[in-house]
Amino acid sequence: MPVVSHHLSLNMRGDTQIENVTAQVQDALIASGLKAGLVTIFVQHTTASVFILEDEPGLRLDTKRLWDRLIPADPHWEHNLRNQGENNGHSHLRGQLQGCSLTIPFSDGTLALGTWQAVVIVDFDTRARTRHVVIQIMGE
Amino acid sequence: MPVVSHHLSLNMRGDTQIENVTAQVQDALIASGLKAGLVTIFVQHTTASVFILEDEPGLRLDTKRLWDRLIPADPHWEHNLRNQGENNGHSHLRGQLQGCSLTIPFSDGTLALGTWQAVVIVDFDTRARTRHVVIQIMGE
Amino acid sequence: MPVVSHHLSLNMRGDTQIENVTAQVQDALIASGLKAGLVTIFVQHTTASVFILEDEPGLRLDTKRLWDRLIPADPHWEHNLRNQGENNGHSHLRGQLQGCSLTIPFSDGTLALGTWQAVVIVDFDTRARTRHVVIQIMGE
Repeated sequence: MPVVSHHLSLNMRGDTQIENVTAQVQDALIASGLKAGLVTIFVQHTTASVFILEDEPGLRLDTKRLWDRLIPADPHWEHNLRNQGENNGHSHLRGQLQGCSLTIPFSDGTLALGTWQAVVIVDFDTRARTRHVVIQIMGE
Repeated sequence: MPVVSHHLSLNMRGDTQIENVTAQVQDALIASGLKAGLVTIFVQHTTASVFILEDEPGLRLDTKRLWDRLIPADPHWEHNLRNQGENNGHSHLRGQLQGCSLTIPFSDGTLALGTWQAVVIVDFDTRARTRHVVIQIMGE
Repeated sequence: MPVVSHHLSLNMRGDTQIENVTAQVQDALIASGLKAGLVTIFVQHTTASVFILEDEPGLRLDTKRLWDRLIPADPHWEHNLRNQGENNGHSHLRGQLQGCSLTIPFSDGTLALGTWQAVVIVDFDTRARTRHVVIQIMGE
């Protein structure tokens, strides 16, 4: 059973910016030639996440509002107090809760995504960074 | 290595209703004839999730109370303001945080679930809907 | 395609204690002899979770503070009210939100973890317990 790895580099801006990578995941699946199995999207960072979104402008704004409310930026996070120059304690806490790994089944060469499901990367950090994402495809 | 896909349709009511699908997942595993590998349960919707619950009546009530507190229904979510007739902005935000994909290892033909772990689907939407769930089994 | 299962037992103390198991996951991968595929870390409990952390002392403290704020201990959780002697309703709710399954791709015999990413188990319960974790490796 073959295993194929594809790598994405995304120039992101932080501050809960969202990037839709559904087309890249689908292209990687097609290029693999595999027909059934699992695609795993894995973000190689602790202040960014992958999740499934109905990608319309309202929910992009709501996502930012949600995180600013649930886990606010705060100079008093210990990560900021104990590490000189750091201000992204909240970014880490958001990233670890939303998660950096997502697994999607595919069959007949097609991802099992529902009509409104998009795969997105969210950058929770406080400055622009290049983000590395692994798209791994395993199947038959 | 075979890959087997099984599809569930669930008639759900929304409002944080929880449906236990552990038996269906176990039945799909037995029907596959596979002995070791991964089962992925994937919900094909943006306002419903899959997670692991100790399924007793108190925690079902607590789960609803938790979500009503963490991410309340609110006409001011942008998803509701910008899309006429929508009132389920909170349902989307809950679904994307709880997640729509769960992967469970199995060996000796048995899921690795602990004694108290049940696989459940939760419907966060504001009206009744039929929910589609893929149970994919890959292994040897 | 081989599937290899490895089992960990961890003596943990509850109260959002964090244990770094990255080395154990890497050792299990090396012992498997596999070069490319998926590692799934699965916690067989409903009051403990697995996640990815930048493992420095500040973020360990922030993680505890976050959970004490998001989902506080409270005698009024229905799990506590309806089940005599139980006081860990919040532990269950934290465990189900943070999740008990994590899937990480590997290739060239190496996990796809980024520089700062550590795999940790967190124990949300209110007393010391032995925690069982499955590390399953599937690949080629």
